[in-house]
Amino acid sequence: MSPVQITAGFNPLRLPSDRRLNRIAGPSGLIIFGVTGDLSRKKLMPAVYDLANRGLLPPGFALVGFARREWEDQDFAQVVHDAVKQYSRTPFDEDVWNQLATGIRFVQGEFDDAAAFGRLKETIDELDRDRGTMGNHAFYLSIPPKSFPQVTEQLRNSGLAEQKDGQWRRVVIEKPFGSDLVTARELNDVVESVFPPDSVFRIDHYLGKETVQNILALRFANQLYEPIWNANYVDHVQITMAEDVGVGGRAGYYDGIGAARDVIQNHLLQLLALTAMEEPVSFEASHLRAEKEKVLSAVRLPKDLAAHTARGQYSGGWAGGEKVIGFLDEEGMNPQSTTETYAAMRLDIDTRRWAGVPFYLRTGKRLGRRVTEIAVVFKRAPQYLFEESQTAALGQNALVIRVQPDEGVTIRFGSKVPGAGMQVRDVTMDFGYGHAFTEASPEAYERLILDVLLGDPPLFPRHEEVELSWKILDPIEEFWATQGQPEQYRPGTWGPASADDLMARDGRTWRRP
Amino acid sequence: MSPVQITAGFNPLRLPSDRRLNRIAGPSGLIIFGVTGDLSRKKLMPAVYDLANRGLLPPGFALVGFARREWEDQDFAQVVHDAVKQYSRTPFDEDVWNQLATGIRFVQGEFDDAAAFGRLKETIDELDRDRGTMGNHAFYLSIPPKSFPQVTEQLRNSGLAEQKDGQWRRVVIEKPFGSDLVTARELNDVVESVFPPDSVFRIDHYLGKETVQNILALRFANQLYEPIWNANYVDHVQITMAEDVGVGGRAGYYDGIGAARDVIQNHLLQLLALTAMEEPVSFEASHLRAEKEKVLSAVRLPKDLAAHTARGQYSGGWAGGEKVIGFLDEEGMNPQSTTETYAAMRLDIDTRRWAGVPFYLRTGKRLGRRVTEIAVVFKRAPQYLFEESQTAALGQNALVIRVQPDEGVTIRFGSKVPGAGMQVRDVTMDFGYGHAFTEASPEAYERLILDVLLGDPPLFPRHEEVELSWKILDPIEEFWATQGQPEQYRPGTWGPASADDLMARDGRTWRRP
Repeated sequence: MSPVQITAGFNPLRLPSDRRLNRIAGPSGLIIFGVTGDLSRKKLMPAVYDLANRGLLPPGFALVGFARREWEDQDFAQVVHDAVKQYSRTPFDEDVWNQLATGIRFVQGEFDDAAAFGRLKETIDELDRDRGTMGNHAFYLSIPPKSFPQVTEQLRNSGLAEQKDGQWRRVVIEKPFGSDLVTARELNDVVESVFPPDSVFRIDHYLGKETVQNILALRFANQLYEPIWNANYVDHVQITMAEDVGVGGRAGYYDGIGAARDVIQNHLLQLLALTAMEEPVSFEASHLRAEKEKVLSAVRLPKDLAAHTARGQYSGGWAGGEKVIGFLDEEGMNPQSTTETYAAMRLDIDTRRWAGVPFYLRTGKRLGRRVTEIAVVFKRAPQYLFEESQTAALGQNALVIRVQPDEGVTIRFGSKVPGAGMQVRDVTMDFGYGHAFTEASPEAYERLILDVLLGDPPLFPRHEEVELSWKILDPIEEFWATQGQPEQYRPGTWGPASADDLMARDGRTWRRP
Repeated sequence: MSPVQITAGFNPLRLPSDRRLNRIAGPSGLIIFGVTGDLSRKKLMPAVYDLANRGLLPPGFALVGFARREWEDQDFAQVVHDAVKQYSRTPFDEDVWNQLATGIRFVQGEFDDAAAFGRLKETIDELDRDRGTMGNHAFYLSIPPKSFPQVTEQLRNSGLAEQKDGQWRRVVIEKPFGSDLVTARELNDVVESVFPPDSVFRIDHYLGKETVQNILALRFANQLYEPIWNANYVDHVQITMAEDVGVGGRAGYYDGIGAARDVIQNHLLQLLALTAMEEPVSFEASHLRAEKEKVLSAVRLPKDLAAHTARGQYSGGWAGGEKVIGFLDEEGMNPQSTTETYAAMRLDIDTRRWAGVPFYLRTGKRLGRRVTEIAVVFKRAPQYLFEESQTAALGQNALVIRVQPDEGVTIRFGSKVPGAGMQVRDVTMDFGYGHAFTEASPEAYERLILDVLLGDPPLFPRHEEVELSWKILDPIEEFWATQGQPEQYRPGTWGPASADDLMARDGRTWRRP
């Protein structure tokens, strides 16, 4: 079957950039463990289809599911089909689907069943022989971290991890990458004892978001921003990831993890690194990672953790017009849990560029609205020609990268109020991805799965970055562990009072995004 | 009659700033010469009414017309009434009008008729006595400059220019302020022999525009822009005032004047001065003027005027879907006229801030569309991490102040194109006055007439600025006078080919706004 057929129905104008750049995966297969989970159905399977629909997968691409269900290939294909129909970003195309479906396989087994991995190997060998995957396979471990040792061990024992000359085997793992420095190292030892570091792809799906990648374009493709992107002009930076939902069905998982480990350790520290890092030598993975590691190494914790960190638990109340229960009352939750659902902290960066410029990070559940943003807040002009009354309604200039939703960039600055006199007031100018580009934004998982198949790792954190993040978070977690119950906050608010105090101590306030 | 009555129907929320700042004119009258002209009917009379409607004129305010028509007070009042009804910005309010109308007077006479000025004096004395204008009067000379000597002479002889203790007399003149340095000085000698310099208000209505005044707020109330507002980051500046109409009924006036004298000498050089000047000590008139004069003094003309200036005359053709005649065929036009309807020039500024940053000025009639803007075009980033193909669609960053229409600010910068890879393309972010403020923008003439009555002169160019502008323009005009016929350009285009050559020589292109 020729590549022409697989791209039938594909409109090349819809997404020119990957095609034009010839970013099309070579012969390969993707093996998903944990194929019955939510992530697989809602994100991974649709992303695979969308990549196929965009003409970015090879005609002989194979998708293999591994799970304990008693399924045949066609049962699994039906599951993928339904997931694709329901969740894919691009329109359903029969030709594309039919081509993809011919490469779908299912292997039934438990993680402790060596014979099952033997069957997986047979399946893969057959695909290599008959379908042309040519020995190139990525193993996506969409499973709880506690199963990592077992599965990687089985992959080694069955010979599935072995990379023959000119072929590749890669493993994809999702956060959490441990729950502290010690467990992160243990996890890494397990994974990297089987796969070499270059073959381990740690997915932080935030890094696949267009707006996150646009931080690099914004900073380094323009002349406007980089000259003022430093302590001479920036007062502070606020990085926020707010959710309006509670822990929901994840209560069991969430207890003992909490907001900081769940979000700050990975997403927010990665956003901090991209915002604060120096210009890399190039956008190659090694150069990008080197700069991110440098700036993460330069992060300094506050001396007084009580004053410069805050945490909270959402109470019961009203959110979005409906009555909701508190964190401790969630189903399956330990009612004495000291796990935080809101975390905020001040971090400083000991570099010449950022000396004296605090980075404030916060994340929480059941907050006022769902929003992720990076706000670079500038100092006031060194002096005003204006009278005090004229600038009463003038705040600080800010550049806000809206990561989600409503992706884009906002600049806040002062403008003259119409009329005589010289009143100045804050106004905003906006750039919206949705309006600016006719190209649709791929889902983060499309980008990341394609990158795995291409072996293009710039967006995947290296183990060193993960370790550096835990080094930042561990002392805070240890301190919090001595502090008993987190402060309660009402759903729909912007977190506990202590978080506002944290800012007030520095003479600042949180944005209400 | 109390001030309460005059503001009946006025919504204080509509325009808070002037009222809040207590910028309300004290007892005074405005005498308009040339009351039958277009400017009077379309701009001055409506502006006076709008000021009254906004509660910014005193209850005893008087409006006196002087012209040769055989009118009584009520005839003139009817003319004002009709002009107000047709052209006012704010809604017509009977109470406001009735109060204003009681102060309307008309004096019939020719400029060479001393007795008529005697009658004007009697009228004004009576207003001072009975209506409470208290000896404070502004004479608005909306008449051809050739009549200035005669009228100012008459004002002196009749004692109308005399300022008694605690009273004021002011004179308002409109461009053109001469047609070169010599005539500008002659004009000034005439006017300032009768009125002291502080009492002479030269109106450049462009300076009354909100967007022009916002240049000061943009630059000096913010931290974002001033750090990059210099030769380190700015590549060049383009200042454009384009009209889509031809000379129309003004052919007779326009012949011998031309685009450069008509627009560049005043509007565009004032815009250049506000864009390029250093921070003034304050926004007081003397401080603002000092900075504008400094930067105008530092303007350097190109050595090769043939290479770095351009001019043109529009030909006949099609514009806006209708057939239009060429400049030389306009009614009343000398068919051999060498007057330009398009003028462009490169100017440099010999200051540390702007060394090596050309300012390109252009203006013309019958161009592609009506637009006035200041575009600050930034250098490219000093180096790109991106591959050449990735930045092929990336231009230079630009900050554009849209003076008219669609007043606001646009920033053009590079953003990542959605999709894998790192393609970067220009996008824009916009701030629009109309969207940002509920306050309506006053007309420039409202602002300027109120400033005259308040004696608040920051927006009025001093004679020194006028002289400096002519010093810049005179050598170019002299050069052009030796060059015969200007190049023809087709209506609806962006000017003659020589203007594009001017930019091409510097490796740049004009914006297509």
